[in-house]
Amino acid sequence: MSRIIRAALLQHACGEDKNTNLATSIAMAREAAGKGAELVVLQELHTTRYFCQTEDVACFDLAETVPGPATEWLSAVAAELGIVLVASLFEKRAPGLHHNTAVVFERDGSIAGMYRKMHIPDDPGFHEKFYFAPGDIGFAPIATSVGRLGVLVCWDQWFPEAARLMTLRGAELLVYPTAIGWDPRDDRAEKERQRDAWTIAQRAHAVVNGLFVLSVNRVGHEPDPSGVLAGVDFWGSSFVAGPQGELLAGAGATQNETLVADIDLGRTESVRRIWPFLRDRRIDAYDGLLKRYEA
Amino acid sequence: MSRIIRAALLQHACGEDKNTNLATSIAMAREAAGKGAELVVLQELHTTRYFCQTEDVACFDLAETVPGPATEWLSAVAAELGIVLVASLFEKRAPGLHHNTAVVFERDGSIAGMYRKMHIPDDPGFHEKFYFAPGDIGFAPIATSVGRLGVLVCWDQWFPEAARLMTLRGAELLVYPTAIGWDPRDDRAEKERQRDAWTIAQRAHAVVNGLFVLSVNRVGHEPDPSGVLAGVDFWGSSFVAGPQGELLAGAGATQNETLVADIDLGRTESVRRIWPFLRDRRIDAYDGLLKRYEA
Repeated sequence: MSRIIRAALLQHACGEDKNTNLATSIAMAREAAGKGAELVVLQELHTTRYFCQTEDVACFDLAETVPGPATEWLSAVAAELGIVLVASLFEKRAPGLHHNTAVVFERDGSIAGMYRKMHIPDDPGFHEKFYFAPGDIGFAPIATSVGRLGVLVCWDQWFPEAARLMTLRGAELLVYPTAIGWDPRDDRAEKERQRDAWTIAQRAHAVVNGLFVLSVNRVGHEPDPSGVLAGVDFWGSSFVAGPQGELLAGAGATQNETLVADIDLGRTESVRRIWPFLRDRRIDAYDGLLKRYEA
Repeated sequence: MSRIIRAALLQHACGEDKNTNLATSIAMAREAAGKGAELVVLQELHTTRYFCQTEDVACFDLAETVPGPATEWLSAVAAELGIVLVASLFEKRAPGLHHNTAVVFERDGSIAGMYRKMHIPDDPGFHEKFYFAPGDIGFAPIATSVGRLGVLVCWDQWFPEAARLMTLRGAELLVYPTAIGWDPRDDRAEKERQRDAWTIAQRAHAVVNGLFVLSVNRVGHEPDPSGVLAGVDFWGSSFVAGPQGELLAGAGATQNETLVADIDLGRTESVRRIWPFLRDRRIDAYDGLLKRYEA
């Protein structure tokens, strides 16, 4: 029942210049393909700095239509390398309407599907509600030649509902392009708690759904353009977890890294046979999940 | 905003004799109270061996009504020690109708509330669907003088839906009496993956809901009375996790242990201020959670 695919997670720093960032992504994708990767996952908003540290209308100039110039580039790269490619872009849908959108390219360069980030954060340093309208195409796996991808984005990581819905709709693995980091002013213990929490939450998605999780985060310090905060130290630490939550591969916290891992999608079948959680969900008693709060 | 309670998790082995097991639980509760514990949590089905390794109608003799002899004993202990006590019993509700039930006693010995295990496993060595009807009182926190307890039991651990529903209904901490262990025939790597998965899944409940999790598991080898399997090595490893999933206290895998931890319930407020997941749930898009499967 073994079905092995080779995946690569591309973790890198981003600078001010969009073309340079895109060139970095593409060079790393080429390196990954050279190592035999069939599935290549890019980090969240990989063509730009994480501009959401401040609310600035000028940043809407960074957005592009889908399809648009960036997808043209990425489509050509996917076709040239013969890879399934997961990219993450700032989508301009209409004047004043933007999304945080993941686009999946098939090996022939066609667009296999897209996902618009559903859960949008808004916290000091992460003002996403200003930039991104909440996704309106829901939680739908994207069928590709390497399997059905449950593509989710960053803040979605903290919501077991999202992982579960992708699973119930047939996702074979979960993929999380991410941009998350530390406030440099926090102490080491707080930083460790935060990164551990991030890792644990996603490994738990793997466990309770019995599938692989691929999470890709950027690295590097990016200053707060408004000067209000101390900027963000993106913590990298991209990883691949198996269907028991086991860590199969992990990147460091500071360096660009092309993380390659072989994934046997057949393990989902064997793990779910010993842990048949999907059999036992109490769907007769879950109505409250559709409420904001009930106390 | 600090509100500190001292909790104790009582992890112990169980033998054939019910009175001896109950005496062990009570002696450890007394020890915990002597250390200042206000909240004492017992492991799943602490008055008996884990009889679900085999399907034997004679085992229904182990069940008791609630209230009944065991609750009378435990009520007296709670009142004597002035503790909130979480017990886990094999409940006889009617002839041929039994539940896996947690009972919570208030400091005055009164029954503060009960929870009937909602998710019922059935796997080799864990034939619970034979013994326990699925709970019918849903996911409802139990109000006590130490806070509102989201009491769940064992297999519920693998269902983020259960933890979320308790949270949305005002639970201030999650409590999991448990009986989980290894098949002695599995190799060390498989055993470690299983225990890690168990820990991670529950630490993630703490993270995504921003509250404390207390999980109590038994220790010791118990043979399979039917001789079909190799028995179960219960892995102990009871633990307390904080609202960022951080491990605050942990027990070993083989010995009886009274694990005491101070819990500051005020941390939920501060953690949820930086990680306001409850604000951002997409309740407009969660309908699929009420389905068995959608693909």
